[in-house]
Amino acid sequence: MTRILYDLTAANNIRFSPNCWRTRMALAHKGLETHCEPVRFTDKDKIAFSGQKRVPVLKDGDTVVSDSWKIACYLEDAYPDRPSLFGGPEGRGLTHFVNCWADTTLHPALIRTIIYDIFESLDEADKPYFREFREKRFGMTLEEMAANRDASLTAFRALLAPLNALLAEQPFVCGGNPAYGDYLIFGAFQWARVLSPVTLLEPDEPLHAWRERMLDLFDGLGRGFAAKR
Amino acid sequence: MTRILYDLTAANNIRFSPNCWRTRMALAHKGLETHCEPVRFTDKDKIAFSGQKRVPVLKDGDTVVSDSWKIACYLEDAYPDRPSLFGGPEGRGLTHFVNCWADTTLHPALIRTIIYDIFESLDEADKPYFREFREKRFGMTLEEMAANRDASLTAFRALLAPLNALLAEQPFVCGGNPAYGDYLIFGAFQWARVLSPVTLLEPDEPLHAWRERMLDLFDGLGRGFAAKR
Repeated sequence: MTRILYDLTAANNIRFSPNCWRTRMALAHKGLETHCEPVRFTDKDKIAFSGQKRVPVLKDGDTVVSDSWKIACYLEDAYPDRPSLFGGPEGRGLTHFVNCWADTTLHPALIRTIIYDIFESLDEADKPYFREFREKRFGMTLEEMAANRDASLTAFRALLAPLNALLAEQPFVCGGNPAYGDYLIFGAFQWARVLSPVTLLEPDEPLHAWRERMLDLFDGLGRGFAAKR
Repeated sequence: MTRILYDLTAANNIRFSPNCWRTRMALAHKGLETHCEPVRFTDKDKIAFSGQKRVPVLKDGDTVVSDSWKIACYLEDAYPDRPSLFGGPEGRGLTHFVNCWADTTLHPALIRTIIYDIFESLDEADKPYFREFREKRFGMTLEEMAANRDASLTAFRALLAPLNALLAEQPFVCGGNPAYGDYLIFGAFQWARVLSPVTLLEPDEPLHAWRERMLDLFDGLGRGFAAKR
């Protein structure tokens, strides 16, 4: 196979990166068979060919693309006859807003909630790297962040109001059918699902039913990795 | 003219309702000439025919539609040969997310910042109504909310991160050209602009340049109402 997605992994082959999940779902949406190559934080030599140090990286024949948003745009433009990720130029522009909202708002709140679970899930070789860089970024120890988990979860849940309002009125973020805007949000929930026992959603929330629908897509691609709880 | 938009007004004909601005911009986008009929909070008899008490209300020939989102969907479906507000089904679904985000996140933070300016701008007849209902909703006096203005402004500005990230990379919320997703955000800024002296944006922010572009649209429709400062 000439198509390879370099995908972050924790111990026991747990694929937890929210941005890699975006790409994995986008590839499935386009119906493009892809080998997923696991990369640990301390394995970054594997993606040195991409000229940068972050996953996801997609190698598609001779083309190399990194950054999940750029990969989505590449897939849409390179495979225009496959099902659309955006539904046209306005859809692409608006999906980019969802991308920016997830990156600047949803992910920072969620990582504060699950950071200790991420740490505990990692391969032993990755733990010192993860601790050092995350503690520097957040200005506190992982243990201090874990102690704040309840407040972080409350802050995260407050961000979900627009999604619950939306999904009470339509089945998917992108309307009647799922597209890349849905995968952006799904990535965050999948991140938590595969490595944290925290309950992010209550069963009566519209987001809860949406997440089930998302887990059913592509022959249960998202369910292929067991939930932590 | 058989097309009438019932539009909230303060004293001196200041049209400040963010939701009415959404509709006004949508009508201009569709190129549909419309008479805008001013309605004060204590004038609600004027819209009794709509079977509810909130503006905007659009009367288009014999059709009556209230609620800005329903009006946008009505205009898109009734005038499919005019420029699209959404750009297809995915664009409509994603625009609905922007609508829910503005309603549940942006507007509640902004009203806390400008509520006393709204109150002061109203026709004298409307002030007692506005004070009573808003103080009941927020559980504090307008003066207490005004005293918290700096904290409210900080909270509002924190919400703008995804928009600034987005507009650093593309000229409009909907991509290369403005559409209803832009009008949703513009409504909030226009609300503040026509009645509050508060500085919401700094000149070097991407949102600032975007707002100027929005004010230029449709022969300067948004500039037709003077800024408070």
